[in-house]
Amino acid sequence: MNAIHKQKKVIIFGGGTGLSTLVRGLKKFPIDITAVVTVADDGGSSGKLLDEYDIPPPGDVRNVMAALSDVEPLIEKMFQYRFQSSKGLEGHSLGNLMLAALTNITGDFARAVEQMSHILNIQGKVLPAANERITLHAELEDGTIVTGESKIPVYGRKIRRVYLTPEEVRTLPETVEAIRQADLIVFGPGSLYTSILPTILVQEIRQTVLSTSAKKVYICNLTTQAGETLEYTASEHVQALYDHAGEAFIDTVLLNTADFTSLLAHGAYEGAPLPVEHDLEALKKLVPDVVQKDIAVIIDGYIRHQSEKVAAWLIDYMEKSNKE
Amino acid sequence: MNAIHKQKKVIIFGGGTGLSTLVRGLKKFPIDITAVVTVADDGGSSGKLLDEYDIPPPGDVRNVMAALSDVEPLIEKMFQYRFQSSKGLEGHSLGNLMLAALTNITGDFARAVEQMSHILNIQGKVLPAANERITLHAELEDGTIVTGESKIPVYGRKIRRVYLTPEEVRTLPETVEAIRQADLIVFGPGSLYTSILPTILVQEIRQTVLSTSAKKVYICNLTTQAGETLEYTASEHVQALYDHAGEAFIDTVLLNTADFTSLLAHGAYEGAPLPVEHDLEALKKLVPDVVQKDIAVIIDGYIRHQSEKVAAWLIDYMEKSNKE
Repeated sequence: MNAIHKQKKVIIFGGGTGLSTLVRGLKKFPIDITAVVTVADDGGSSGKLLDEYDIPPPGDVRNVMAALSDVEPLIEKMFQYRFQSSKGLEGHSLGNLMLAALTNITGDFARAVEQMSHILNIQGKVLPAANERITLHAELEDGTIVTGESKIPVYGRKIRRVYLTPEEVRTLPETVEAIRQADLIVFGPGSLYTSILPTILVQEIRQTVLSTSAKKVYICNLTTQAGETLEYTASEHVQALYDHAGEAFIDTVLLNTADFTSLLAHGAYEGAPLPVEHDLEALKKLVPDVVQKDIAVIIDGYIRHQSEKVAAWLIDYMEKSNKE
Repeated sequence: MNAIHKQKKVIIFGGGTGLSTLVRGLKKFPIDITAVVTVADDGGSSGKLLDEYDIPPPGDVRNVMAALSDVEPLIEKMFQYRFQSSKGLEGHSLGNLMLAALTNITGDFARAVEQMSHILNIQGKVLPAANERITLHAELEDGTIVTGESKIPVYGRKIRRVYLTPEEVRTLPETVEAIRQADLIVFGPGSLYTSILPTILVQEIRQTVLSTSAKKVYICNLTTQAGETLEYTASEHVQALYDHAGEAFIDTVLLNTADFTSLLAHGAYEGAPLPVEHDLEALKKLVPDVVQKDIAVIIDGYIRHQSEKVAAWLIDYMEKSNKE
């Protein structure tokens, strides 16, 4: 009993491949993981289901659940299966359909995620950042307003800020509680404007994060991202976090030192992802603790965080912080 | 270990509501249940999936799995959930989509059913009678040939015989093994021509059933069925079984004695289901042992077998038979 009660609690905010990759590493450690996933999304199958079933877009939630699941690989494959040929079914992923059905039966998306988590034997907890449909908007540097998560990166112009409608979004009590009890709070990696920021734009999440004494880590993206963070330095990523939270709140930023540009399949090519520049001087003014580590790896031609290394560092960091 | 090895084995052949109802009763007893489900079906969502995914129709398999499942009611509801409003998804049941996805991933319908059985925590085993697409045809008494399970009852004419194409259907080795090891073999209740007979039309199933020494019980339908068994007496049901199996093989037939006609919500009305007539004299010439019991009940205005009573009788019958 004692060992269970003492299990350290990590809460991670984000969405997309970054979050999924990280939790695959973290679930190998004996810690209590909560992933709070952005639901301001409007692409692909999610979009269609959104319109017809009036539920938050399940895409990112589905991917993180798959990453945290501990079932036979076939069950995970089924959950992630995407119908190809069928009239009408085209493009739908089965996991999204399962979540849509459960939401329709229970009348509650968060409860659907909870039930689905049982089926997938989730090692941890996945919570949608909001339990209702929210829309993400971006104000670009020229003042243009773009509505819809998938449309935001298309413009290729610098983003001034993102915001949600409705402004007052219902938060799950479990999310607030998980933030309060967390021993470590992690942001990223992931799309800054469309995955990370939408979570802290939820008022109650933002307020609770800012009020806790737990250490807050930002895992900076490895590369800049077209339409979101093109030419952003590391400090500019952090500055965007602060601008949207309303104050400085990150204790430690984790940067990658591995030179992956030479490792990419085709070397430096037109449109190849570029590493985020480490403008250490500016960064140190924003964040008390800047950590640089060799944590990048090439997987199937894509540059990714080496999830086990990042996870091991986070565990180590959490243990040291708690001794202070 | 010993107790488990001694658990009695019951194998049931059929499909539709009859089979689902019976196994819901049987699963409450400590016995080993195998349900062999007809897959010659072409209606509703099954039909659509059939055409696009080239799998046997999962409808009946899905219902029996739900009946044998031991999971939270919500999971069963999800499995049985039918999409209503969505473009393209309309009429699809989620369970069918899950089976289609698993079949597509594994390349094998029987393996998909097996995996789905794990998810649903099936108390027993569900085996499709065939592991490929088979088509059911009927020759009516006027010589007309009708193709497709759902089309057969539509004609409303007497059926001379049903048959499958292809004639040589692959059988699952597990089904043959389950028949060989069964302590009791049960046919029905269920649609005679479209649920029961298609199972014994599979050559290897028929041959194995006829070669075993286990007792064979036929649970006669409570009512005649439009387009299939209108005006059929009990002995005519049994005669159809014998005609399709090629020989007499039923040891015991179970008939209902409860007078349910007065119990039906609206009493005797035009089109009300009519009880199967017990022509005992003819029946006793076909079956050594004719049992009559009060086993009918009205559920939501429909006449059904009282599953626990039928199950209890089957268990009792099996125990007595094995002492002989």
